[in-house]
Amino acid sequence: MTYSELSELIVRKQSYLCVGLDTDLQKLPHHLLTEPDPVFTFNKAIIDATADLAVAYKPNIAFYEAQGPRGWESLQKTLDYIPVDCFTIADAKRGDIGNTSGLYARTFFNPTAAGLNFDSVTVAPYMGADSVTPFLEYAGKWVILLALTSNSGSADFQRQAVGEQELYQVVIETAKRWAGPDRLMFVVGATQADELSRIREIAPDHFLLVPGVGAQGGSLADVSRHGLTAHGGLLVNASRSILYASNGLDFAEQARAEAKALQTEMAKYLNS
Amino acid sequence: MTYSELSELIVRKQSYLCVGLDTDLQKLPHHLLTEPDPVFTFNKAIIDATADLAVAYKPNIAFYEAQGPRGWESLQKTLDYIPVDCFTIADAKRGDIGNTSGLYARTFFNPTAAGLNFDSVTVAPYMGADSVTPFLEYAGKWVILLALTSNSGSADFQRQAVGEQELYQVVIETAKRWAGPDRLMFVVGATQADELSRIREIAPDHFLLVPGVGAQGGSLADVSRHGLTAHGGLLVNASRSILYASNGLDFAEQARAEAKALQTEMAKYLNS
Repeated sequence: MTYSELSELIVRKQSYLCVGLDTDLQKLPHHLLTEPDPVFTFNKAIIDATADLAVAYKPNIAFYEAQGPRGWESLQKTLDYIPVDCFTIADAKRGDIGNTSGLYARTFFNPTAAGLNFDSVTVAPYMGADSVTPFLEYAGKWVILLALTSNSGSADFQRQAVGEQELYQVVIETAKRWAGPDRLMFVVGATQADELSRIREIAPDHFLLVPGVGAQGGSLADVSRHGLTAHGGLLVNASRSILYASNGLDFAEQARAEAKALQTEMAKYLNS
Repeated sequence: MTYSELSELIVRKQSYLCVGLDTDLQKLPHHLLTEPDPVFTFNKAIIDATADLAVAYKPNIAFYEAQGPRGWESLQKTLDYIPVDCFTIADAKRGDIGNTSGLYARTFFNPTAAGLNFDSVTVAPYMGADSVTPFLEYAGKWVILLALTSNSGSADFQRQAVGEQELYQVVIETAKRWAGPDRLMFVVGATQADELSRIREIAPDHFLLVPGVGAQGGSLADVSRHGLTAHGGLLVNASRSILYASNGLDFAEQARAEAKALQTEMAKYLNS
């Protein structure tokens, strides 16, 4: 999906909602546990209930990997089921030396490898240029680079002073040399809304993937005020608050209600 | 495996060699490709040929993940086959917010999850304390934290000046507060041997996992001179130079010859 296609999708759906498919077998409604593949059955119902409200889906790979080979099968089926008018994100936070990052890129971008064909993957910046650029060798695919994350540990290194800047700003400035806003996004936690204005100064056109609304306590209003651009420029992720809105028979209906509430609020910000 | 068990193993085997099982289907000897699981058949032969010379094995997870579910099965079988007197490292470079890192820890450390029971996992530090500490909740298991990596991109962020130090030094100093040398190692590339003396000043007792000897050009002599301690303190990894010493019928024999040459050199440094 291109930059302009994603922007148009946001306008059409009046939404910049990303649904995080962090599907935890231990939190699923009990009536699904007798299904042959409970994780896929659950994801399918969540996707059916939210596909008109969301512009993106983001499975966090840890949740699938923790189930071993059958987790990867659930992931393949889930990805295949996501409608083509939704942007897909492998939230994998990978990064290794060049030839190894090339294999991770192959895993998530080349369907003949591991059966996966995501639009984008999240990448950790610590190992620098040659750990990131192999992901950019796939035409039309995106890198979403960790910049300023939503967790408390983000203070440990990301906010260390490097000259006049903080490390996460150096990461953004440096990565801008590797790809333009048409191939590169940044992860910025919703709990870091105060920093969004500074980030928009150095990355005015890049999409930002913003987790941390919902269970982690970030404010959609604050994120939208500081982060929205003329092209949208935001993908705001919610996972637990949507997936586990109910653990009864009505889980999909309640998930839709949560997603609808976020989308309605987003429509308001898009038009103000 | 405990710190003292690992130290004793190094003395007994007269080796601090780690064999990196970066098994690439595209580089395997042709005669193995008709096997039901060529990756496992290859690994089994490499392990048989090197188990008396190596103290550790390190599968890089990217190589298995890129094969999808069957790659995870090859990984499970390989890990089960590694003798109990060898330390095992999941080279995964994972790291996410706390609850998600907990799932990655479960993947590699809890055999009831993904069928894997590694002694240790490599972790990326960028997301800070709560992305690393979930891996430390498993008694007897180790975190091997990226500090100063072997690739050219290590200059981009790891060597940025943070106050009087470089970022990688801040990472080491900070992580020392999370666990002692009995649970925490650091990754330092063999191509960074000049920095090893400085690292030994701030981490005199920690084991260092040192990739980059062999195909990447690092010197075993330099690494050993600056990195060895009274307790060993080093695991030096070689992957491609051992695995692909030959791609003929004699691949295991040639792999052993490469491993033997490294072990012989290591015995000399251990006794000098």
